[in-house]
Amino acid sequence: MLKGILNFAHYLLEESVNPGDTTIDATCGNGNDTLFLSRIVGTNGHVIACDIQQQAIDATRQRLVEHNRFNVSFIQDSHARLKKYINKDTQIGGAIFNLGYLPKSDKLIITNGESTISAIDIILDFLKQGRLIVLVVYHGHPGGEEEKNTVLKHVMNLDQNDYNVVQYGFINQKNNPPFIIAIEKKQ
Amino acid sequence: MLKGILNFAHYLLEESVNPGDTTIDATCGNGNDTLFLSRIVGTNGHVIACDIQQQAIDATRQRLVEHNRFNVSFIQDSHARLKKYINKDTQIGGAIFNLGYLPKSDKLIITNGESTISAIDIILDFLKQGRLIVLVVYHGHPGGEEEKNTVLKHVMNLDQNDYNVVQYGFINQKNNPPFIIAIEKKQ
Repeated sequence: MLKGILNFAHYLLEESVNPGDTTIDATCGNGNDTLFLSRIVGTNGHVIACDIQQQAIDATRQRLVEHNRFNVSFIQDSHARLKKYINKDTQIGGAIFNLGYLPKSDKLIITNGESTISAIDIILDFLKQGRLIVLVVYHGHPGGEEEKNTVLKHVMNLDQNDYNVVQYGFINQKNNPPFIIAIEKKQ
Repeated sequence: MLKGILNFAHYLLEESVNPGDTTIDATCGNGNDTLFLSRIVGTNGHVIACDIQQQAIDATRQRLVEHNRFNVSFIQDSHARLKKYINKDTQIGGAIFNLGYLPKSDKLIITNGESTISAIDIILDFLKQGRLIVLVVYHGHPGGEEEKNTVLKHVMNLDQNDYNVVQYGFINQKNNPPFIIAIEKKQ
């Protein structure tokens, strides 16, 4: 069966992240992906969960406590400023973004193209070779089309000698369905 | 590691085709995909290998003999006429197309959009629910752009209640790299 968007995002991370890795959830939202990363890196691994909204940090923290997961640290700030929180020798084993707005929250607080591409470039610097940044691109909301175009333009220009960039999405669905962009830092 | 185009095509078929199935290679070419299908359906399964060119049928037949595979039948005709060769009760477990021209042959003999969409529609009629048609779309050659657009337009209009249509491809590569379209007949 063809994998849906969220399944495919998790499949890509599961195939590439190893136990013990340090990973990033750049938009932790309701904590779903943070919990997933927390499990696949295991007790010796680490997840950095970032979100600009207090509500998201609180929801994610609670979700993790409920599942007895304690290998996560939190950054409440824009992911465009991630660099100041990451030790310069850190090697990142994988990262995920959900672009759009936090479900059940203020739809005026959305990720935007410029900060998203800044965050992508920061994480690419820290990313291990052969590993992935996975972006789940929601773009049906106001501002979503613009962010989608900014991000697509940026990743399409990543040098093919250094990166593989894949797009995966359903092309016969109505209402601007989300799609995946996956960026692999080549070996 | 992100799967390349051919690996991803085979991965999708491997995940969906079962031993004992009847499958179709709608453009058998040099026999690479026919051999792959022959292996995954096993000795109780069957592959229908179709190509309009004698050279492709010969190459595929030879490839299979070299690998001691005898579960394949051949149709030398346009895949747009597949219907006359398939028993009306046959259920197809999966199919693959390589769109473009036969490597190392006459580049004027290419698949074209109209016959490709006819063949897709015929196979969809025979396809089991939950199974896939996988298209590897080469489009850098003269006529390739036109075929790509015809096929994309057709599959994007397949009703989302009946089919899932996924596109997978590298978006930061030069020279019109091939990409995948996968069509799943919903359960």
